[in-house]
Amino acid sequence: MTLSMYQASVPVFVRMLGNLRSLIEKGGAYAEARKFDGTLLADSRLFADMFPLARQVQIATDAAKGCAARLAGIEQPKFEDTEKTLPEILARIDKTVAFLNTVKAEQVDGSEARPITLALRSGELKFDGQSYLLHFALPNFYFHVTTTYNILRHNGVEIGKMDFLGRVS
Amino acid sequence: MTLSMYQASVPVFVRMLGNLRSLIEKGGAYAEARKFDGTLLADSRLFADMFPLARQVQIATDAAKGCAARLAGIEQPKFEDTEKTLPEILARIDKTVAFLNTVKAEQVDGSEARPITLALRSGELKFDGQSYLLHFALPNFYFHVTTTYNILRHNGVEIGKMDFLGRVS
Repeated sequence: MTLSMYQASVPVFVRMLGNLRSLIEKGGAYAEARKFDGTLLADSRLFADMFPLARQVQIATDAAKGCAARLAGIEQPKFEDTEKTLPEILARIDKTVAFLNTVKAEQVDGSEARPITLALRSGELKFDGQSYLLHFALPNFYFHVTTTYNILRHNGVEIGKMDFLGRVS
Repeated sequence: MTLSMYQASVPVFVRMLGNLRSLIEKGGAYAEARKFDGTLLADSRLFADMFPLARQVQIATDAAKGCAARLAGIEQPKFEDTEKTLPEILARIDKTVAFLNTVKAEQVDGSEARPITLALRSGELKFDGQSYLLHFALPNFYFHVTTTYNILRHNGVEIGKMDFLGRVS
């Protein structure tokens, strides 16, 4: 067994998106138990000019599908970023995982040197596939998944780090 | 070029710990400009029973040095977890990076199948090296670095995601 670009990307995203799904479900159960609308959690944020939970999940799922597609050299599905409620956010996660599950190891493996160009608001970023995965896509993905966790936790949802990590061995 | 266990671990940790250092320095400058003691930031948290910033950095640095040492099959330095102030926290990061820089690629590469056992409060976890790195060590590390970011951001420190990601290409 040798570490591969596929192993370090697609299964990591699928696994963590499953954990993210469970975290958000716990948020929904918490809202229901407290008798408030879960959409308030979806619209919650850690600071006035930070993105709310719904947007955090949109970006996390974009990070995952964008990375898989760029490494594989295929088109990614475009999602409209219209999610407002927790069920809509869960559906966004599900359609991302459904796409990721169509990406095959042989499409991603060997993409270490593949040129990747990202057009960000701040300008163009150029990478090779390995640097893109390790130093941009994975930290960016984890940033938004963790921030989603922190928004839920900050609102009192009873989750712990083992929910974030999931079943690990 | 082929993705390797070393490339996916040690340089990732070193790079992100440098970014974490810059984030905390910005926290210190913010406290100074606002004329409050930076230790208040070090002791700040997102919810009553979450760990404060100082502990987040202790765990992030432990995650990095523990992962590098376990994959390399060497002893890791033990730190005493006494950091209270922002300068002490920066020093913790620096000594972690100094250790990581002693770990060589040839010690870590080929560790995909190395048996790794973690003794957690919740029980023993057993992994192979690759699963440990991808599904435990990296998410755990990013969790605590991102939570540090979120604690600073929640307190109004003017940082953005590009500070978290660092110079990326």
